[in-house]
Amino acid sequence: MEDAAHAPEQSLDLSLDAAALTAALVDIPSVSGQEKALADAVESALRALPHLTVDRYGNNVVARTDLGRAERVVLAGHLDTVPIAGNLPSRLDEEGYLWGCGTSDMKSGVAVQLRLAATVPAPNRDLTFVFYDNEEVASHLNGLGRIADAHPDWLAGDFAVLLEPSSGQVEGGCQGTLRVLLRTAGERAHSARSWMGSNAIHAAAPVLARLAAYEPRRPVIDGLEYREGLNAVRIEGGVAGNVIPDACTVTVNFRYAPDRSEEEALAHVREVFADCGIAEFVVDDHAGGALPGLSHPSAAAFLKAVGGTAHPKFGWTDVSRFSALGVPAVNYGPGEPTLAHKRDERVLASLINDCEQRMRAWLTA
Amino acid sequence: MEDAAHAPEQSLDLSLDAAALTAALVDIPSVSGQEKALADAVESALRALPHLTVDRYGNNVVARTDLGRAERVVLAGHLDTVPIAGNLPSRLDEEGYLWGCGTSDMKSGVAVQLRLAATVPAPNRDLTFVFYDNEEVASHLNGLGRIADAHPDWLAGDFAVLLEPSSGQVEGGCQGTLRVLLRTAGERAHSARSWMGSNAIHAAAPVLARLAAYEPRRPVIDGLEYREGLNAVRIEGGVAGNVIPDACTVTVNFRYAPDRSEEEALAHVREVFADCGIAEFVVDDHAGGALPGLSHPSAAAFLKAVGGTAHPKFGWTDVSRFSALGVPAVNYGPGEPTLAHKRDERVLASLINDCEQRMRAWLTA
Repeated sequence: MEDAAHAPEQSLDLSLDAAALTAALVDIPSVSGQEKALADAVESALRALPHLTVDRYGNNVVARTDLGRAERVVLAGHLDTVPIAGNLPSRLDEEGYLWGCGTSDMKSGVAVQLRLAATVPAPNRDLTFVFYDNEEVASHLNGLGRIADAHPDWLAGDFAVLLEPSSGQVEGGCQGTLRVLLRTAGERAHSARSWMGSNAIHAAAPVLARLAAYEPRRPVIDGLEYREGLNAVRIEGGVAGNVIPDACTVTVNFRYAPDRSEEEALAHVREVFADCGIAEFVVDDHAGGALPGLSHPSAAAFLKAVGGTAHPKFGWTDVSRFSALGVPAVNYGPGEPTLAHKRDERVLASLINDCEQRMRAWLTA
Repeated sequence: MEDAAHAPEQSLDLSLDAAALTAALVDIPSVSGQEKALADAVESALRALPHLTVDRYGNNVVARTDLGRAERVVLAGHLDTVPIAGNLPSRLDEEGYLWGCGTSDMKSGVAVQLRLAATVPAPNRDLTFVFYDNEEVASHLNGLGRIADAHPDWLAGDFAVLLEPSSGQVEGGCQGTLRVLLRTAGERAHSARSWMGSNAIHAAAPVLARLAAYEPRRPVIDGLEYREGLNAVRIEGGVAGNVIPDACTVTVNFRYAPDRSEEEALAHVREVFADCGIAEFVVDDHAGGALPGLSHPSAAAFLKAVGGTAHPKFGWTDVSRFSALGVPAVNYGPGEPTLAHKRDERVLASLINDCEQRMRAWLTA
């Protein structure tokens, strides 16, 4: 990790268009854990804007308007990137693609945030801009989560947009994810005298049968069709080639639609395997979903302004951190999700500017 | 491993009683791979007996009578022991137990062989005495197997007794053991979008259901009730906590009664899982069973002479190597099987002498 504490501060020119600003952001490397230089540049640029109040917590920067509007909207994006893969500095090709680490995930989104912060001094809704660190690494380091723990009031709002790559399409909420270990028990014996023992792998037969027969729901929430899934992601059992095994563990991952709470999701999984002879039921990991909140007036106005059709988000994302604070949230950003984390990461420059225009239209209508 | 090539040869006094001879054998250490000193002593003692023809192959020694009897019986035992565990030299306690490494498994049996070789010069059946190495280690090193490959004629006979520890009870034949890997296949996908993939662990549900419902046979062969078993001994599947797995392997062990041939056992297992969607069926290990041969006249006479009730042998043993050569075989020896391979290994001295007397009665009736 570089020590950037005494490096000369780099400045950002927020009068550049969103694509050029993206290039400038990409050219300040900010691999997870090394976001200081970029956070300094963002903080400095925002402090130069008299209509914003700026706060900082570690390498997380939060700026807000305080115009007394009826609604407050939060626009959030992470500053960090995955490790650089020989793909810096950025370059713009003849077809209008900007190449480089972080172009899609998600400095193009950050550029849109900064452009809106600089150019919409009197929005029709109060705005909170959140720039956070450590999104690409372990969950407990995640800057948004750490702000939610230390300064939950900084994230207060009626609606939130996370500018993660979504190809300029609105993706509503996200599904929850629950991982449990289902353990069966038996009794060891030599396999030549198997009747002296009890086979824990055979005892897992009802668990696999239940999984194979499971019919996942496809609930429609705020007009979006979610798709649940209940799957074994690991199975392990066995002692030796001639021993009846006394233990077997099936690891099950339940991906559930955001109309279920964490408690309801857990209760559902317990119920599915209730009569399967489970010896031990261990919750390994659990992160709740996020409602799309598209029926909220502010969200409806947003969807109308940016256009297109909203899609459900199946994977778990940071929008659920807003949901946990009672703030409905969507993903909407100019990056291309399928190019995230790739050596040939790039973004269509025109889409960044387009995204900025659509969001400005929504905030100034 | 010690180099005993130039050690002074140790001699064995075959006029000692079987218990005292066991102690002498135990006091010549012969951990697997280090049997030379003991094989030398055994060979030398046998070559001193004019009624026997002696052959040697590595550290395996075979001696036989050639009296032109109507039947030939093979008496076999291994010379090696598991590693010494601070339990040498041997000692006889006040209750008549002889303690030490190899007392039960199986130098007491070897002592009985040597006593019969020395004291029954004109048996009613021709006799072949087999002393072999490397029984306690990998199957491909096993001396009996190597004789069977190189000199199968040395093992020819109408009936064989393996003097492995059986508490002085006759154990007939042995069950076969077949291990197969049953592999199911799927297609990877992110677990948040499980419908894009196909779950190989779920695909193993019919395999476990079949195993759990399997009703093993208990066939009676030559008056002995065998007990089969079909068991999963291992199951493995999974890629990561958020990935639909594309592979799962169930390792199944079939222990089968000796009325099935190896081919029949394999065909049975294939049939059991025929419609379970197995992507790959791999035979991992296979060793056929051995018929008890108790209906053979020589075996019936043996059983009558040694007394007691014959029991089936459930585990796989070297008797099946005789069976593969067309020689019915039983286990019968003075050692205590539950004490084999233990630090407190011991044998009741009187049982060794008793075993010798019973076998002598059979061979001189």
